[in-house]
Formats: sequence, structure tokens, C-alpha cells
Amino acid sequence: MAGPLTLGEIVQRLGGRVAGNADTLVHQVASLERADARHISFFTGSRYRSKLAATRAGAVVLDAQAESETTLPRIVAENPYAYFARVSQLFNGLVEQEPGIHPAAVIAKSAKLGARVSIGPGCVVGEGAVIGDDSTLYPRVVLYPRCIIGARAIVHAGAVIGADGFGIAEDEGRWIKIPQIGGVRIGDDVEIGANTTIDRGAIDDTVIEDDVKLDNQIQVGHNTRIGAHTAIAGCVGIAGSADIGRHCTIGGAAMILGHLRIVDHVNISAGTLISRSILKPGTYTGIYPFDEHSSWTRAAADLRRKGKKNG
Amino acid sequence: MAGPLTLGEIVQRLGGRVAGNADTLVHQVASLERADARHISFFTGSRYRSKLAATRAGAVVLDAQAESETTLPRIVAENPYAYFARVSQLFNGLVEQEPGIHPAAVIAKSAKLGARVSIGPGCVVGEGAVIGDDSTLYPRVVLYPRCIIGARAIVHAGAVIGADGFGIAEDEGRWIKIPQIGGVRIGDDVEIGANTTIDRGAIDDTVIEDDVKLDNQIQVGHNTRIGAHTAIAGCVGIAGSADIGRHCTIGGAAMILGHLRIVDHVNISAGTLISRSILKPGTYTGIYPFDEHSSWTRAAADLRRKGKKNG
Amino acid sequence: MAGPLTLGEIVQRLGGRVAGNADTLVHQVASLERADARHISFFTGSRYRSKLAATRAGAVVLDAQAESETTLPRIVAENPYAYFARVSQLFNGLVEQEPGIHPAAVIAKSAKLGARVSIGPGCVVGEGAVIGDDSTLYPRVVLYPRCIIGARAIVHAGAVIGADGFGIAEDEGRWIKIPQIGGVRIGDDVEIGANTTIDRGAIDDTVIEDDVKLDNQIQVGHNTRIGAHTAIAGCVGIAGSADIGRHCTIGGAAMILGHLRIVDHVNISAGTLISRSILKPGTYTGIYPFDEHSSWTRAAADLRRKGKKNG
Repeated sequence: MAGPLTLGEIVQRLGGRVAGNADTLVHQVASLERADARHISFFTGSRYRSKLAATRAGAVVLDAQAESETTLPRIVAENPYAYFARVSQLFNGLVEQEPGIHPAAVIAKSAKLGARVSIGPGCVVGEGAVIGDDSTLYPRVVLYPRCIIGARAIVHAGAVIGADGFGIAEDEGRWIKIPQIGGVRIGDDVEIGANTTIDRGAIDDTVIEDDVKLDNQIQVGHNTRIGAHTAIAGCVGIAGSADIGRHCTIGGAAMILGHLRIVDHVNISAGTLISRSILKPGTYTGIYPFDEHSSWTRAAADLRRKGKKNG
Repeated sequence: MAGPLTLGEIVQRLGGRVAGNADTLVHQVASLERADARHISFFTGSRYRSKLAATRAGAVVLDAQAESETTLPRIVAENPYAYFARVSQLFNGLVEQEPGIHPAAVIAKSAKLGARVSIGPGCVVGEGAVIGDDSTLYPRVVLYPRCIIGARAIVHAGAVIGADGFGIAEDEGRWIKIPQIGGVRIGDDVEIGANTTIDRGAIDDTVIEDDVKLDNQIQVGHNTRIGAHTAIAGCVGIAGSADIGRHCTIGGAAMILGHLRIVDHVNISAGTLISRSILKPGTYTGIYPFDEHSSWTRAAADLRRKGKKNG
Repeated sequence: MAGPLTLGEIVQRLGGRVAGNADTLVHQVASLERADARHISFFTGSRYRSKLAATRAGAVVLDAQAESETTLPRIVAENPYAYFARVSQLFNGLVEQEPGIHPAAVIAKSAKLGARVSIGPGCVVGEGAVIGDDSTLYPRVVLYPRCIIGARAIVHAGAVIGADGFGIAEDEGRWIKIPQIGGVRIGDDVEIGANTTIDRGAIDDTVIEDDVKLDNQIQVGHNTRIGAHTAIAGCVGIAGSADIGRHCTIGGAAMILGHLRIVDHVNISAGTLISRSILKPGTYTGIYPFDEHSSWTRAAADLRRKGKKNG
């Protein structure tokens, strides 16, 4: 992590262009509201114009279109939000945990750990598991036997990777468990949120490709594939054997049923249940619009009547 | 915790009024169905009248309106359910775990722990974290660095407080992580359910005010604020930067999108997705009414047609 | 676990009938796609006919109706999926964890453990808890005091059994906690998924009957009863005091409200919110059908208008 930097030094490292005093020294990032003269902030749209006008930040990042909206020292960049992310990375590490294996972690003898991995207290890494270079497991992550995580992973506390998939067969009213003998293969640059669960495959593997980003409390069923560069928000459930493409985004609490396919570049809105394959890129939504309770009561009654009539 | 008490001793401590024999001795609380002569139970409404008639409880708590519905010894109170809660607190502790730090907990040197805190096995408390007096962390709670919990907190097993918020910026098809440098500030008298997750702020803090009650498996996104005395049921997801008022209730599995505001005294029904700000107190609902599958098929088809026509 | 077996040896153990060469030797199960000559696979329906045609498996399990669809050595069974499950159990154990108590588990002195239990690292078993014979707790399971698990249970990592139910009473704008003094009673042959939570009862117990199968990240509220042989998929939420029958199935992310009753042999579709009792066996659904976003916008607007008109 760097010490304080001038705007000139920042653009030398990250590109972009300075408008105003390039010698302006900044020590840390901050929000427009909380920034003071030592901070650099960012501005991404007219919604925040009044905050930009009121900010006491030492400098801001914005795009060329917004350049004239402030007289503060500023860095002009094509994608101010991504630029700001990189500036923050200059001042702050990506993870807080030091490399090394905490003595209160339990690592199986046959597990293979890459260089500079960081494994927090309470983690459990099973037999034959593999963790790539520069990966971080925060406290209490469980990696079941024979599951593989690539390089530069960040896995947050409480995540469980490789528990048995939900494989049961009905037989005369009782359930027969199907041993879950597949594994989990996770690519490079993947982030996995707190208390998220990724099940091992029933027979073949569950696959999470490179640069997939998973928020907290997501459930990924067995034999699912999630394509590279797909980002999934919190509380999403993905049933078994879903095949999700690359560069998709899935909003919070959406639910993806099993044995279906979603092509690349699909965006699914929060709270939407996907019940069949999506073969065309685009944005898909299925949310019951909320309303005051009394209005909802009427609309819902109407909907139920539709189900009865001609029934 | 008290030993057996007479009804007279109970009203001396908690107020209310005895009808019938004030010397009736009770040893513990119980449900109307399971109670025997040593137990005190409670009655809150006509729905349970047959259970009241059949109960073998030694005494009951009820309100003045219901007073004549039984001849059992009874305590008459304005709010029988809250009164019953207090009676139960006379006989039972709020937490089962003894004060002290279990040797299988991992506490960072710079963490500050208040008086009489109880920290269970497997807990991890990060650098600079703060826990107020009389707070209990059940087993396997993780408190990330620099997160703050007030006094008298009860945090259940598996909760994760202060994991990184889901902050990523897209840049030419790849994701850039935004370091999450804010913290989590939790007030006094807060309860947090098992496996609930509360993310640290991206830049500023995530804030949970006093007397907030969170059930299990709730996800609270970064920079959210939850106002004092708000109660949230299980499986709720709250996306980033939501600003939720005081004295709200949110039903199970509801989903609150990010960057919106909910004023004080709002009730959100279970399973409802809140997609825009709510600026007026009241009850809000958005649930697809379930039905027999065949009826649902018809109504859903009609709804889809509505989307197509005039499209 | 067995070594390689001939088809003849398999039908001797499990029933069914061989068609083709009964001396065909198989070493392991595999999917139709990935199988080679050492593997036995299964075929359950016309949807997979092209995979059956292309497979390089040494043998397959199928039913009499499909018997002529391949010339491969095959086992003909009434329920090929359940048969396949049993074949997999011949080659693979149900759990990977050895019997015994890992030294990094924390077991209260008064807990009672059955024969051959397996308790992984990081597990916490509270005072007075009971675990039946041949049960497995994977890493980091928490069993709160006085909770009971039967025989042959499989509990996956991160599950929390017996945390306090969400019992609070409002009193002049503040919340009074109701001590949760009930327990959790879990029958035999129950499987519980990763990070699933089952709350202890408020006064009486929460009850999970024999052969119930729970997937990951399910929340079971206090005083719920789940009848024997019921299977529940991931991310389901069940509010307090629900009474769910035997032989039910509940799809992923469904939500069951509290204080209601669901009779035996009810199937609830994924994503459906059950808001009232279901007293008749059958399949019940309530899903907002997703669509392209622009179509959804129109249909949702129409639905909202229904709420306003005649309002």
C-alpha cells in the first residue's frame, strides 16, 4: 500500500488526466459526504450533484462530461467508478488478513496450499483439497475434501465449499441418499461471500470459472456451472445442474431452478425466479410489484380469480 | 433467576393484578397445552380459547377483557404477551452461556471487551473490534477487524459481522474489487440470529441502531442503516446503502433493494420485494398468491399475456 | 465399500435383472457423458436419449420400458434412479469423515454421544445434547444445549441447531426477549445441509421427524414440526410454529409462514410463499412468471392498476 500520493502520481500509475492542481496530495479515499481535504472521492452521475457541490474533498474522480461540474482538483477518467476502485487499491489492501496459516486452522495433510496463502482461524481444509497462490480464506471457511480453489481467491467467513449436493432418490416413500462423489473446481480471481455454500457434484464436478464474484449467503447446487466474469448478489439460490453463462449478473434473492441454461450476457433482476432456460442475452424480471397492503389485497384477489375462471 | 414464586410475588415485581388465589405457587412458564399445576401460561386471544378451557396450568396471564374466560388463578395485565415474556425472564436467563472467554475462541490483542462478556468456542474477534458490557457471542461468531458491538448484545452461532461488502466495478468485462474500508457499528440491546451476515461499509460504516432484533440468515449489505427498535424476521436480504427507519418490522424472506429509504413505522410483509423508497408509514405487501398448480398455470399465463399485448 | 463388481453380483445384492453380459465388471458410477468402460451409469427418460446413444459406459441401469433403447449390458429395475443410488452406495460411502471426535471439536461434559459418531473439527456440542449412533457432524456444526439428534444423521458444515427462536414481545416501542426454553428433537436418518439453521422451541420443542431431508441454508423457526419423509430444498424459510406433514416436498426458496398447517403429501413449488394452511394433498404454486424486462414492466403496471381501481 502506498503512502500519500499527488494526483500527478496517481495518473502516472493508473492513467487518466488531471484537471486543476496536479500536486494536490491525497491520503485516502472517502465518500463525497465524509471527505475532507486529505481525501479523494468520486462522482458518477447527476443523482449526486448536490453532494458534489457540498463536498470538502481534496480531489475527485469523474468523467469528461462531468469535468466542468466542479472546480476541485480532479482526475478525469473514462470509467470513474472503476478508476476509483483502483485508486482505493493504491491506498488499501484487498484483504486484511496476513499470509500464513493460523494455528487454529485445521489443514489435512494431503491438502496442497499455494504460495502466500492466508488461512484464518477456524478454517478446515479437507484431504486432497487445493488452494492456489495468493488466496485468502477468512475465519471459519470449510473446504471439503478434493475441492479446488484457484489463485487470488478471497473467501469470506463461514463459507462452505464442497458439502454434499442434495441428491436423494425416492423409493417407496423413503429417501435413498446418492453419494456425492464429484468435487468443486473454482477458477482464479474468484470472491466468495460470507456463509455462501457451494455443493460438490453428484458425479461430475461443480464448476465456478475465473473472475466470478459471489456475495453472501448464496447457495450453489451440485453440478452447477457458473461462467467467467459473472457476478451474483446476496441470497441467490441456484439449484442443481444449472448452466449459467459468462458475463451475467444476477440480482439479490433471485432463484435459478435446476437443469436449465442461461447464455452469456444475461442480467436477472433481484427477486426473480428463473424457471426455464434463457437463450437470448438481455434483462429478465419477474417481481410481484409491492403496494400498500389494501391495494395488494385487491390485485391479488383478481389474480386468483383468473386462476379459477374457465378452470 | 428466581426459584418458585407466588402470583403475588410476581405482580409485586412486574405490576399487574392477581385474580384468584395470590398464593398460587408457579415454578416455570409453559404453553397452555403442556402446562401442569406448577406452570404459569398465557392467553392472548379467542383463537386459543379451547386451549384455555382445556389447560391444566396452575395460573395464566391474560388481559382484563379475557379475565372472565377462566376461573384459574390469573394475572391480569395490559399486554399479556409482554408480561409473559417478563415472567419467563424471572424463571429463565436470557442466555445459556456463562460469562468469560472460551479457550477455543480467538481474540485479537487489540480488541476491547467490556465487562462480563461471554464469548463461546470458535469465535473470532478481529483487531480493533469492540464488544460492550454484558454481551454474549455464541459459538463460532466472527467479528471482523474494527467492528463495534454495544452492550447487552446477543449474537447467535455462525453470525458473521464485518465481512467485505459486495463492492465491485466493471472494467472492460472484468471486475475490480473496491476495498471495503468502512466498519460496522452496532448499538446496545441488539440481537443477531444464527448465520446472519452484516457487511462492513465500503467507505463509511454500516450502522445497526439500539434494540434492533435480527432473526437468522439475514443478509445486511454494506452501508445499510437500520433504525432503532426495528425487528427483521429470518431470511431477509437487505442490499447496500438501504436506509431503514425506526420501529419498522420486516417479514421473513422479504428483500429490500439498495440505495432506498424506508421511513419509521413501516411494516413490510413476508416475501415482499421493496424496489423503491417508502416515505409513508403503513403496511406494504407484494406476494404472488399461491394456488393449486393448475390454477396458478392459468393465472400466470394471463399475466404473461398482459406483458405481450400492446408490446 | 465394495471393490469392482459384476452386474450379476450387483443384482444378487440389490435385486433387478441383468440384460446382456452379466459378467461385465464395473468399478464405479458415472454420468452418461463421462462414463467409460469401467463405469455403470443410469438412464431415466427420453430427455437423455441422445446421451444414452453416445455413452461409453460399460453398463447402465434403466427400466423395462427403456430396455430396448440400448444394447449395452444393463440392469433393468423398476425405479432406476433409486437403484442407481444403491449401486453408488456399494462403491462409495455415505460420509467421508472417519468415526471419532476430532480434537478441535468442543463437546460439553454432559453431552451424550452414541456409538461410532463422527464429529469434525470446530463442532460445538452443548450441555445435555444427545447424538445417536452412527451420526456424522461435519466441521463447524453447532448443537446448542439439550438438543437431540437421532441415529444415522448427516449434518453438514456450518449448520446451527438449537439457537434461540425469534421470540420478542413489543412493549411501548421496545422489544422484550422471550427466553427460548424449548429444545430441538431430531429423529433418525435425517440429513441437514450446510449452514442450515433450526431454532429451539420457545417453550415446547421444535420437532424434525425421521427421514427428513433438509438441503443447505434452510431456516426452520421455533416450534415447527416437520413430518417424517419430507424433503426440503435449499434456501427455504419456515416461520415459527408451522406444522408440516409427512411425505411433503418443498421446492427451493419457498417460504412457509408461521402458525399454519400443511397436511401429508403436499408438494410446494420453488419460490412459493405459503400464507395459509393447506388441508388437501396436491401441488401448490405461486410464482410471478419472469419475462423480458420490458414485458414485465407492462404486466406489473397492469397488476398495480388492479389494486388501485375500485379502491
